[in-house]
Amino acid sequence: MPELLYPLDSTKRFTDQEKVGHNRWHPDIPPAVTVRPGDEFRVHVREWFDGAIRNDDSAEDILNAPLSTVHCLSGPFAVEGAKPGDLLVVDILDVGPIPQEDSGPLAGQGWGYTGIFPTDNGGGFLTEQFPDAYKAIWDFSGHVATSRHVPGVSFTGIMHPGLMGTAPSAALLSKWNAREGALIATNPNRVPPLALPPLPTDAVLGSLTGDAFDRAAAEAARTAPPRENGGNQDIKNLTRGSRVFYPVFVDGANLSVGDLHFSQGDGEITFCGAIEMGGFIDLRVDLIPDGMSTYGVSENAIFMPGNEGPVYSDWLAFSGTSVTLDGEQRYLDSQLAYQRACLHAIDYLTKFGYSPEQAYLILGAAPIEGRFSGVVDIPNACATVYLPTAIFDFPVAPSLDGPAQVDPGMGAPHAAR
Amino acid sequence: MPELLYPLDSTKRFTDQEKVGHNRWHPDIPPAVTVRPGDEFRVHVREWFDGAIRNDDSAEDILNAPLSTVHCLSGPFAVEGAKPGDLLVVDILDVGPIPQEDSGPLAGQGWGYTGIFPTDNGGGFLTEQFPDAYKAIWDFSGHVATSRHVPGVSFTGIMHPGLMGTAPSAALLSKWNAREGALIATNPNRVPPLALPPLPTDAVLGSLTGDAFDRAAAEAARTAPPRENGGNQDIKNLTRGSRVFYPVFVDGANLSVGDLHFSQGDGEITFCGAIEMGGFIDLRVDLIPDGMSTYGVSENAIFMPGNEGPVYSDWLAFSGTSVTLDGEQRYLDSQLAYQRACLHAIDYLTKFGYSPEQAYLILGAAPIEGRFSGVVDIPNACATVYLPTAIFDFPVAPSLDGPAQVDPGMGAPHAAR
Amino acid sequence: MPELLYPLDSTKRFTDQEKVGHNRWHPDIPPAVTVRPGDEFRVHVREWFDGAIRNDDSAEDILNAPLSTVHCLSGPFAVEGAKPGDLLVVDILDVGPIPQEDSGPLAGQGWGYTGIFPTDNGGGFLTEQFPDAYKAIWDFSGHVATSRHVPGVSFTGIMHPGLMGTAPSAALLSKWNAREGALIATNPNRVPPLALPPLPTDAVLGSLTGDAFDRAAAEAARTAPPRENGGNQDIKNLTRGSRVFYPVFVDGANLSVGDLHFSQGDGEITFCGAIEMGGFIDLRVDLIPDGMSTYGVSENAIFMPGNEGPVYSDWLAFSGTSVTLDGEQRYLDSQLAYQRACLHAIDYLTKFGYSPEQAYLILGAAPIEGRFSGVVDIPNACATVYLPTAIFDFPVAPSLDGPAQVDPGMGAPHAAR
Amino acid sequence: MPELLYPLDSTKRFTDQEKVGHNRWHPDIPPAVTVRPGDEFRVHVREWFDGAIRNDDSAEDILNAPLSTVHCLSGPFAVEGAKPGDLLVVDILDVGPIPQEDSGPLAGQGWGYTGIFPTDNGGGFLTEQFPDAYKAIWDFSGHVATSRHVPGVSFTGIMHPGLMGTAPSAALLSKWNAREGALIATNPNRVPPLALPPLPTDAVLGSLTGDAFDRAAAEAARTAPPRENGGNQDIKNLTRGSRVFYPVFVDGANLSVGDLHFSQGDGEITFCGAIEMGGFIDLRVDLIPDGMSTYGVSENAIFMPGNEGPVYSDWLAFSGTSVTLDGEQRYLDSQLAYQRACLHAIDYLTKFGYSPEQAYLILGAAPIEGRFSGVVDIPNACATVYLPTAIFDFPVAPSLDGPAQVDPGMGAPHAAR
Repeated sequence: MPELLYPLDSTKRFTDQEKVGHNRWHPDIPPAVTVRPGDEFRVHVREWFDGAIRNDDSAEDILNAPLSTVHCLSGPFAVEGAKPGDLLVVDILDVGPIPQEDSGPLAGQGWGYTGIFPTDNGGGFLTEQFPDAYKAIWDFSGHVATSRHVPGVSFTGIMHPGLMGTAPSAALLSKWNAREGALIATNPNRVPPLALPPLPTDAVLGSLTGDAFDRAAAEAARTAPPRENGGNQDIKNLTRGSRVFYPVFVDGANLSVGDLHFSQGDGEITFCGAIEMGGFIDLRVDLIPDGMSTYGVSENAIFMPGNEGPVYSDWLAFSGTSVTLDGEQRYLDSQLAYQRACLHAIDYLTKFGYSPEQAYLILGAAPIEGRFSGVVDIPNACATVYLPTAIFDFPVAPSLDGPAQVDPGMGAPHAAR
Repeated sequence: MPELLYPLDSTKRFTDQEKVGHNRWHPDIPPAVTVRPGDEFRVHVREWFDGAIRNDDSAEDILNAPLSTVHCLSGPFAVEGAKPGDLLVVDILDVGPIPQEDSGPLAGQGWGYTGIFPTDNGGGFLTEQFPDAYKAIWDFSGHVATSRHVPGVSFTGIMHPGLMGTAPSAALLSKWNAREGALIATNPNRVPPLALPPLPTDAVLGSLTGDAFDRAAAEAARTAPPRENGGNQDIKNLTRGSRVFYPVFVDGANLSVGDLHFSQGDGEITFCGAIEMGGFIDLRVDLIPDGMSTYGVSENAIFMPGNEGPVYSDWLAFSGTSVTLDGEQRYLDSQLAYQRACLHAIDYLTKFGYSPEQAYLILGAAPIEGRFSGVVDIPNACATVYLPTAIFDFPVAPSLDGPAQVDPGMGAPHAAR
Repeated sequence: MPELLYPLDSTKRFTDQEKVGHNRWHPDIPPAVTVRPGDEFRVHVREWFDGAIRNDDSAEDILNAPLSTVHCLSGPFAVEGAKPGDLLVVDILDVGPIPQEDSGPLAGQGWGYTGIFPTDNGGGFLTEQFPDAYKAIWDFSGHVATSRHVPGVSFTGIMHPGLMGTAPSAALLSKWNAREGALIATNPNRVPPLALPPLPTDAVLGSLTGDAFDRAAAEAARTAPPRENGGNQDIKNLTRGSRVFYPVFVDGANLSVGDLHFSQGDGEITFCGAIEMGGFIDLRVDLIPDGMSTYGVSENAIFMPGNEGPVYSDWLAFSGTSVTLDGEQRYLDSQLAYQRACLHAIDYLTKFGYSPEQAYLILGAAPIEGRFSGVVDIPNACATVYLPTAIFDFPVAPSLDGPAQVDPGMGAPHAAR
Repeated sequence: MPELLYPLDSTKRFTDQEKVGHNRWHPDIPPAVTVRPGDEFRVHVREWFDGAIRNDDSAEDILNAPLSTVHCLSGPFAVEGAKPGDLLVVDILDVGPIPQEDSGPLAGQGWGYTGIFPTDNGGGFLTEQFPDAYKAIWDFSGHVATSRHVPGVSFTGIMHPGLMGTAPSAALLSKWNAREGALIATNPNRVPPLALPPLPTDAVLGSLTGDAFDRAAAEAARTAPPRENGGNQDIKNLTRGSRVFYPVFVDGANLSVGDLHFSQGDGEITFCGAIEMGGFIDLRVDLIPDGMSTYGVSENAIFMPGNEGPVYSDWLAFSGTSVTLDGEQRYLDSQLAYQRACLHAIDYLTKFGYSPEQAYLILGAAPIEGRFSGVVDIPNACATVYLPTAIFDFPVAPSLDGPAQVDPGMGAPHAAR
C-alpha cells in the first residue's frame, strides 16, 4: 500500500476532516497535498453525498438528496514542476471500497447504492418515463455485488472513480461559466435545469476562507459535468491499471478525485446510476512536459483502460434509433437513440418479472456497454446497449420456452412527493 | 458450405442477375427465395454501389457516387409459416468476401474501400470539417486489411452485414414516410438532407414490374436509415456466430441482407466508413411464434454478437463532451460529444504524421469502439472512442519520447468540385 | 482468396491427384510447388486418412483404420532462397473445411469425425481405460459443431492444421531414426508401440519413383510425432491469424501441411481426438535469414497464435496428480497427472448422463485447455484440464440441485474385435 | 471487508501469533476457527518461509532456506455441519498483499521474491541446468510487479493462494505416507529427494501439544505436494472470483490456506517460482452435502477460475518434445516436453541480453501459460509455453531487425556453496 497522503475518518463528516476537500472547481483552491512526479500515494475518498444516502428500504433520502453538496472531492494534489501545457500522467494503481470497514452507515462500508433521481431533484436519462425516486442497495461480497432490491443478478464490479480532473485556470473557468450561463439563459426555469450555475450555498473549497472563499464560491464551477479538465466523466473503464493523461491548466496541475463507483453501466443512466461508494484510490503521477501541444491534447482527457476488468463473452444487445416515443423523427440524435435502446432493454426485462424500475437500476449499475453503432445513416442514429448475459441467474436470451420468471421480491424502494 | 440459394455472377450488374434483389423497402416486393425454419443457406451479396467504386488512386468515383442506387440488397427470403408478431431468429453462420475471387474490379475481390463522402453527396459524421471526397483502398490478406493510402495500420476484420432486416408492413411503411417526410419538411433544401424521401429513379424492386412496380417505387422507403425492421444498423459486431432476432411485420418475414463490411469502426463515421465489399453470407433462420409480444420486442432488432471477433486488450481512448467547436454549450448531446471525441482522436493521430483525412479514414474502417460514457451529467454528455493500440505498427501511446513519425505516403486520394 | 497452388479433387484419392503429396518425412521428396518469400497461396488438404472414415453410425472403420497410410500431407512447398539456418515465417491467413462442398463422403464436406482408437490400432491417452474403438460424427453449421453421437454440446471450432513442418536434412532424419529406433528396441513388441519405425508399405513420397523412391521409403520418418521440424504438433491454437517460425534444414525449406482439424482439445487425447477434416489453408511465407542462430531457435517451432479464436470466460476445471489409478506414487509425472485430470473430468461428466466414451470424446474434440499447473512440488505434478462451460446446453457446475441429466441418445458407435 | 477471523501480527513470528497455524497435514490438528456455511471471513496469511527471505541483493537466504519449516498455513477452519463425503465450496472473494503495510521486512509488504533453489536445497524444474541459488526481488506498484534484478518486464499479478486444502482423514494420511514412502525407498539418497517423509523437526501443528503433538508430528504429511485434498496445487488461476470444490474427509472439513503468490507462471518452474508474499485472503464457504458421490469428485479439487485476471491477447509460444538434451528419445513424457519448451524460451530470451537465470526467473514469475498440446503422438509429447508479449518493454517477436538488447543490469543475485 502506498503512503496514505489523504486520510479520511469515517466517523466524521467531509467538512470536519483534517484535510478538507472541495465540491466545486476553482483555480484558487489551495493544494491539500504536494507530491512529486513518480510518486505513488493513497487517497481516501468520501462517497459523493457525504453519507446522506442510507442502507435502508426507503427512497426518501434519494427524493431529498442535497444536490448542492456534491461532489465531495479529495485534493487538490499539486505535482511539483507541473506547468500549464504539460500532460499530467495519472496511473490508477488500485481502487476499492473503504478499507478495513465492512459495515457501517457510509456507502462503501460493505455496501453501496444506486438511485433513480426524481425529475425535480436531478432527473436522469429516462426521467420522462421514471419521474419518481427509487433506490437499490447493493451488498459487496469480495468484488461481487448483489441487491435485495433487485434479485436475480450479480456481477463483478469494475471499480473506478467517476470523477477525476485537474484544476481549471481562471480563463478556463470563465469560459465554462459563460457558455453554461448562456445555455441556462435559454430556459432558466426548466426542470430539471439545463445546467447548474455557481452556487455559494454548501460550497466547500478546501482551506480557502474569508473573502477569498466568498470570491471563489461565487464563481466556482459545479462538479456535475465533465469538461476540458476531465472531471465527472463517469467512464466506467477507468479502473485499476488505467493510465489517464490530463491537460494541465495551472501550476502544479492540482488534481482532485472523487465519486468512486463499485460498478456502473455505460452512461450511468439513472443519474446516480453507478453503485456509489466511498473508498480509497492509489495513484501514481508523472508529467510529459509540453505534452499538450506535442500530442494535440488541449481540451480533453485521454486514457488507456486497465486490463483487469471482468471479461464477459456473451451479450444480449438492444438497438434504438432516433425516433421519439411519440413517433417523431429526429435527425441523427444518438442521445435519443441510446434512450430508446435502453427502453427496449427495460421492456424486455420486464417480461422476466422485473418492475421497470428494477430493470432501469440494472442498466445503471451493471457493467452494460453502450455503443454508437451508426451515426451517419440519415435520419436515424443507431445506438446499442449490450447486457452481459452471465450477470443473470437465469437464461436471459429469447427462446421457444418463453421468459423465465424472476421473483421481484420487495422491489426497489419508492418515494414521491 | 450450405446450399447457395441466392447466387450472384460477378461479371454481371446487380440488375442483370438471375435473381434480382432490391434497393428500397416495400411490402410488395415478392420473395426471391422461400426457405423453412431451421434451413441453412448461402447468399451472395453485391457491394452497396454495385461496382461504382474502383480500386484506383482517385476519389472521383466517391465524389460522384450514385446514391440513388443504394443499397443493393439480396432477397427477400420468405420463411414458411412466419406471421406478423413472430420473432425471426437469424444466425449468421459465416460471412466473408467474394468466394474464390481474389482479384477483380468489384470490391470484395481481394480488396475493399472506405470513402469520405463530400458534403453535397452524402456527407458524413464530420462533414463540416471534411467537406471533400477522399478514398482509401484496403487490401485483404486472409482476415487482415492494409492500405496503400493509409500506412502504418493493419487489423483483423470483424466482417459483418451492415444491413439486414425484414420487410415492413404497409402500415409501418406509411409511418416511416410520414415521420421522415415531416422532418424533411422542416428544412427541405438542407445539404446534406435531413432524410431521404422515396425516389422512383434507380429503384430496383426485385421481380416487381409494371404498375405494381410504379406504385411501389413511388412509396418504397430508402434503405439508408436503420428502422424498426433492423435495416442499415451498421452494427460492427453482427459478425460470424451472431444471432439476431427481428420483428416480423409481413407474412413470410421477407428478410433481406446487404452492405457487407470487411471491417468497421463503431459509428461508421466517414459515412461509407466501413471497408465496403461484396461477398457471401451463410444464414440459418428460425421462428419464435408470437415472440414480439412474449419478449416485448416490437420496434427494434435484438441480437447476441458472436464470440469470434478479434480480441484486443490494449486501447487508447479519447473523450469528448457536448460543446461545439465554436465553444457553444449544448445540452446532453451524445452525437456531438462523439464527434468531439473523434476529432480529438484525429488531432492526436496527425501528430504522428497522418493527414487529418487518413486519421478520419482509420476511425471509420478500423475496429474502434464508440461508447456512451456519461449521458446524465448536465449539461455535458461524455462520449469516448477507443482505438486498439495493436493496429498500429508503432507505439501510439503518449510518452516522453514524443510521437513516432509515420511516412504518410501518397495519402488518401482526394476529389472536389 | 489467394491463388490456389495446390488443388485437390474431392472425387479422387490422395494418390491419384495431379500433384501427389506425401505421408513420410524425407529430404529427397521433391518440392511440389515453388513459391517466393512474401507469396500468399491456397493449399487444399486431404483429411489424414484419405476418406477411410465414413459419416455413419459404426466404428468399424476406426477399428480397422489404415495407420500405415497417414498423414496425407500437401506439399512440399519450396521457398526460393531459403537456406539451412534460416527461419521460415509462415502466416496462416485462413483455414477451413473443403470449400464449396457441403456434403459428401469426405470428412470436411460439412462434417468431421473424432475417433477413440483401439489399443491394438493406435491406442490413445487413456487407452487402458478405453481399449475399444468408438467414433463421433460432428456436423458443421458455420463455425459450430454438434454431434448426433454426443448430445448436449456445441462449440465454435478453433480450426487449425494439426501438422505442418519443414523437411528434415539427411542428418536430422538419421538422428530421428537412431533415437526412435533405440526406444523401440527397449520393448519392440509393445502394444501400442513405443514409436513407429520407417515403413515402406503405403509410403507416398510425392513425385519420387524407382530406386530413389525405394531408398527414401526405407528410411523416411513416420509423421506421427512432432519433432524439430514442427510436424504433428497438434497445437490447437495454430489457427487463422497465427504466425509460425520454423527452422530450415534443407535448401528451399520444403514446407508441408496436413491433418486439418475443425476443433481440438489440448492434447488431442483420444488419439484422433480432434474433429478431423479435409479443407483448405491459405498461407503466406517469408524468411528471416540466419534466424536460427540469431534467435536461438534450433530444434523447435515457435509461434504467435491468432487473436480470432472464440473467447470463453467461464470454465470448470479438474486437477490431477501423478499418482496412478492403482495408487502408486510417481515422481513429477505431468503426463500421468494430465491423464488423471482428464479421468476426473470424465467421471464428473458421466454424472450428467454421458457414457464415459462420450465424455472422453468431448475432451478430445471441444476447445478444452490442458495446463501444467505445478511441476516442481515433489513428488506430485499437478495438471489441470479446463472445460468451457458455455459449450454445454445445461448448467455444468456443481450445485445443490445436483447434476442435470442429458439424454445420451444413441451414444457413440462402438467396435471391438 | 469481511470479518477478520484469523489475524497475523507482522511484527511476530508465525509461531508466536495469537492463533498458531500449521505446516504439516494431520487430521488431529484442532480447528483454529469455526465458521458456518455461507460465512464470509478474512484470513491473514504468512509467506511460506515466515520471513527467512529478505529484500536484498544476495541469494544466500535462498541457498540456505529452511525447507523443514514450510509452508506456513493459516487455519484450520472448521465448517459447521461438514461431513466426510460432502463437497466444500470455497469462494475466493479477494486476495492480496499484506494490507496497509507498504514496506517492511516481510515479503508482502510492498515486495515479493522469486527464487531459483539450488539442487541440494529443493532444486527445481530445470535444476540440472540451474544448480545454484538465485533470487529476484519484485516491487509492487498497485497490481503491477517490476524487479531491479530482471529489467525490461512488468506485469499485472494474478494473485492467488498457492496452497489451500482440507484436512486428510487418518486413512488418507496413511495412504499418502505409504505411497510416498515406497517411492522414496526406491532411491532414498537422491538429491533432490523423490519425496519428503514426515519430519517432526520444525513441525508446527496449531494448538496441539504434548504427546498428541509428538504422535501427530511423527506421521503428519509434508505440505509440498498437491494431493487428494487440494493442497499445494500452485494453480495460478485460483484468483479473486474463483470457486473451488474440495472433497471433505473429516468432520468440519478443516480448511487451511497459505503460500500466497502475487503472480506465477504455469508450473511455478523455478521451485519457488511464483512471486512469494504474505497477505490476506477473503473467503466464503458453503457445503454440497454428499457432493462427492453426487458429482464423482473423490480425490481431487475442481474449480471455476475467476474472470478478473489480466487479459492478454498476444503471445509468443515455444514448443518442446520428449527428447532429452542428450538426444535420448523418451516415450510420451509431457514433463520432459515442458522442460524442453521452457529451455527453448530461455535460449530465446538470452538473445535479447538476459542471463539464462533472468530468463528462468521470468518464466517462473510472469503469467506465462503452459499447455499440453499433444499427448498421444508417439513417441513425442508436445508441450508449449506461452509468453504474453505485452509484459516486455520491447518488441519480443522475431523479426528481420534481430533481437532488441536489454541492459541486464546487476542481474539476479547468485549464491553457491
